Amino acid sequence: MKIALAQLNYHIGNFESNTKKIITAIEDAKQAGAELVVFAELAICGYPPRDFLEFSEFIELCDNAVKEIAYACVDIACIIGVPTKNPRIEGKDLFNSAYFIENGKVSQLVNKALLPTYDVFDEYRYFEPSVSFSCINFKGHKIALTICEDLWNINDNPLYTSAPMDELIKENPALMINIAASPFSYNHDDNRYKILSDNCKKYQLPLLYVNQVGSQTEIIFDGGSLVFNAQGEMLDQLNYFEEDIRIYEFNGTEITGHHIKEHNPSPDIEQIHKALLLGIKDYFYKSGFSKAVLGLSGGIDSAVVCALAAEALGPENVMAVLMPSKYSTGHSVQDALDLANNLGCKHETIAIKAAADAFDSMLEPVFKGLPFNITEENIQARCRAIIVMAFSNKFGYILLNTSNKSECAVGYGTLYGDMAGAIGVLGDVYKTQVYQLANYINRDREIIPQNSIVKPPSAELRPDQKDSDSLPEYDVLDKLLYQYIELKKSSRDIIAQGFDEALVRKVIAMVNKAEFKRYQTPPILRVSPKAFGMGRRMPIVGKYLS
Amino acid sequence: MKIALAQLNYHIGNFESNTKKIITAIEDAKQAGAELVVFAELAICGYPPRDFLEFSEFIELCDNAVKEIAYACVDIACIIGVPTKNPRIEGKDLFNSAYFIENGKVSQLVNKALLPTYDVFDEYRYFEPSVSFSCINFKGHKIALTICEDLWNINDNPLYTSAPMDELIKENPALMINIAASPFSYNHDDNRYKILSDNCKKYQLPLLYVNQVGSQTEIIFDGGSLVFNAQGEMLDQLNYFEEDIRIYEFNGTEITGHHIKEHNPSPDIEQIHKALLLGIKDYFYKSGFSKAVLGLSGGIDSAVVCALAAEALGPENVMAVLMPSKYSTGHSVQDALDLANNLGCKHETIAIKAAADAFDSMLEPVFKGLPFNITEENIQARCRAIIVMAFSNKFGYILLNTSNKSECAVGYGTLYGDMAGAIGVLGDVYKTQVYQLANYINRDREIIPQNSIVKPPSAELRPDQKDSDSLPEYDVLDKLLYQYIELKKSSRDIIAQGFDEALVRKVIAMVNKAEFKRYQTPPILRVSPKAFGMGRRMPIVGKYLS
Repeated sequence: MKIALAQLNYHIGNFESNTKKIITAIEDAKQAGAELVVFAELAICGYPPRDFLEFSEFIELCDNAVKEIAYACVDIACIIGVPTKNPRIEGKDLFNSAYFIENGKVSQLVNKALLPTYDVFDEYRYFEPSVSFSCINFKGHKIALTICEDLWNINDNPLYTSAPMDELIKENPALMINIAASPFSYNHDDNRYKILSDNCKKYQLPLLYVNQVGSQTEIIFDGGSLVFNAQGEMLDQLNYFEEDIRIYEFNGTEITGHHIKEHNPSPDIEQIHKALLLGIKDYFYKSGFSKAVLGLSGGIDSAVVCALAAEALGPENVMAVLMPSKYSTGHSVQDALDLANNLGCKHETIAIKAAADAFDSMLEPVFKGLPFNITEENIQARCRAIIVMAFSNKFGYILLNTSNKSECAVGYGTLYGDMAGAIGVLGDVYKTQVYQLANYINRDREIIPQNSIVKPPSAELRPDQKDSDSLPEYDVLDKLLYQYIELKKSSRDIIAQGFDEALVRKVIAMVNKAEFKRYQTPPILRVSPKAFGMGRRMPIVGKYLS
Repeated sequence: MKIALAQLNYHIGNFESNTKKIITAIEDAKQAGAELVVFAELAICGYPPRDFLEFSEFIELCDNAVKEIAYACVDIACIIGVPTKNPRIEGKDLFNSAYFIENGKVSQLVNKALLPTYDVFDEYRYFEPSVSFSCINFKGHKIALTICEDLWNINDNPLYTSAPMDELIKENPALMINIAASPFSYNHDDNRYKILSDNCKKYQLPLLYVNQVGSQTEIIFDGGSLVFNAQGEMLDQLNYFEEDIRIYEFNGTEITGHHIKEHNPSPDIEQIHKALLLGIKDYFYKSGFSKAVLGLSGGIDSAVVCALAAEALGPENVMAVLMPSKYSTGHSVQDALDLANNLGCKHETIAIKAAADAFDSMLEPVFKGLPFNITEENIQARCRAIIVMAFSNKFGYILLNTSNKSECAVGYGTLYGDMAGAIGVLGDVYKTQVYQLANYINRDREIIPQNSIVKPPSAELRPDQKDSDSLPEYDVLDKLLYQYIELKKSSRDIIAQGFDEALVRKVIAMVNKAEFKRYQTPPILRVSPKAFGMGRRMPIVGKYLS
């Protein structure tokens, strides 16, 4: 039996384009001789649909799409993810389901049992967990069909009290199929590989695993769908970060025609680079926009964002705005111009002095000679936001935010100033990783001026300012932040690792005090296991530890 | 047996102040002859603790607080809410628990079974649902102790497949006690009353119900704890929006010494007024701030926010900044000054022309004579944000946001402009309700100038602008928005109610297009059953229906 795995990029709520894409894949798979084609979790509506699921109209549109897709399933069956109504009055109104469609209609149904409700996931907000389990029967084969998290309960510290495969295995299935929406983070691929391989070993079954690909606002799906033999060895893997359809032969006990492959994921920084490109591309494409604007300072963060945007959208669609203040150094302006020229993107220069001076004069009667402080620094950063937002309003450019994760963490940025933007490109990339990205972008030729990479980071908001005046060196800071943000360690535990106590307390206090700022920042492309945004929900008015 | 109900205002994560407050209540209750004192759900740490729960240090601090509180429980027992560790390796690591503490130590434990995971609630993100049930035994009485949502599964469309009381009733308890953290919305009080009363009728038991009171960033708890007889009739209710401790006599079968009372909640607008005052007060008090700043335009929204802030914080702690543009009318400035004088709050006037002109000149080479449009309107609104944020940075004022729910809904506001602020005071109050609030604030004397109430609403960002140029009249708009936002109706259903089709499509499209703006707005004090913010999670890059 030939089975096609269809790893596609869906658009949440765009039933027209999703359905068309799915039907095309069904027809292509049929042409290529496949008897079954497998799509990802919630393929019909895209993942995560969030509170769209609470609109009954949305569920109707899912049902309509299923009917259209079922029409195409003649002489080929399909497995596809879709939200379905819970027929019982008790419990949540929906299931997260997989339909088995054959001969033009839905013949079998599997509901998800383990509902991820942590980090960026909110599935129990919408779905009732399934408590009944049975295998799919197709052409004499018993298939243990599960949905994403349903296979993930074999860790040391299992999140759930049961595992659907422990039930399904009782029916002696010949094959496992898992449909997923498993988002990217730079370390997730290894976890996923291991969990899936462990399932094969535990249940001694081959596995076909289909993931989504594509970016949905902040959540990036990396694809990389997998095929394992019953020993948990990898037979094949679909492409990362792009659509891919492949066909496999299942002989009733194993997937044939493939040798065992090594799992050799790319280095983290290469994965992050690809993820961010896809994140930018899909944000614009799926929103119906094409042109980006950003402030280009001559520093490394905006340089990296500009280079990524130029690659994702085409340099002709990127407008870099240089906005020197009276504290900007000549070399910063030159570095910014060099980058714009290297990339071939558009650029304009607008000095902010006139506006900043106007505010100083307007506020003088109230400030009455109080000394220059963070107030005047913020005024400059906010003048810049007004300018790039004016480009956005006048010409339809979308503003890219260039704040990195280290800055977002400690609140080293101006709300309504450099923290503005439609999407945060580097908000989940620590400063030390931004340097790695810059070097990776320069791997073939100098795109980002070397000077932007080697000079000491500075906001240039007062004379001779350096980031290191108020922050520790980034290689120390980032390690400390990782312990607190990704690993949720206490100050006591972090100090016990050898970090300076005063520094730990200072940095953690900065992170905590910046919660109110982060609440108002744009969505951030998620590339780590713990990004700011939906995946990290901290109180604002709370008394923080440490 | 005398049982005290302690309805207190907790501060999330502030173990020191929460513990002190709890111990004081225990001692007071003991002095007054109580044998048992009942505190609310998660009283020890405050509700909702959000991802604080994922820090093991936080759980340790809960454990330490329990020990300290247990010390005080000599010759008096207490019931108190606290997160506890799940002893099983399978499932989530925590339970949402109630401890029964007597003779200086924890003697009995109840875990919450029904975990609200909808709207603003995320409990299954953190907690394992309980599946075992038994009554508390105290001095020969069997008490059916449940936690908040555990009593809420008796609707027509139950959210859960089981009800803890159906198990507990098998032990023939004599009394129900429910500890809760049940947040305010203007219609919630009636629901709560009915659900609790229905439980008494169904199980034929009296009920003591203790709610939290106080505001936690955007979520406001209204208190109003309740006492019912076994017929579901109300015997008493604790105060709304303030701390309250009362003692009841339970004779083994009923609560004695109280006559049946009518449930007569105040009018919605009076409740909303009290809720917003508490919301402002607690935001400042719990954050350690005392002074507020806001832009005062002469319009009704900022007038209402200014009056609320003056009442909540004291007029001496409120700085109103008048920032007329060249399009501001003379009467607007006068209305704003009249309000500031009526309230006795501080005020400053800073015209924005110089800054707005500076931006126009700076952008001229790029805009090259393109016509005045929304760009220039936004520049003015953003200049105002720079000024009030400068007050905030220089003097430590906290910026209050004055956008109302109708504006937030349709995106009629400038991101990084008038949508800025630390907390949104009116973001869950429709414009038509803002008028009601204004009239309520003026119930005894004219505080808000009548002119601000009766004149047609205008942003005054271009000559002779009126809100009604781009929006329908607010009484129509608000009804339409309510159907879409609160009731999640489709455009088809709304049109079927008699609304104009073109208008429905236009308004819903405006709501959908404003998702990206709302993502970046400050937290909004929640007073309705569906507020923008944590309780409404919509995709940004999604294809919207309608």
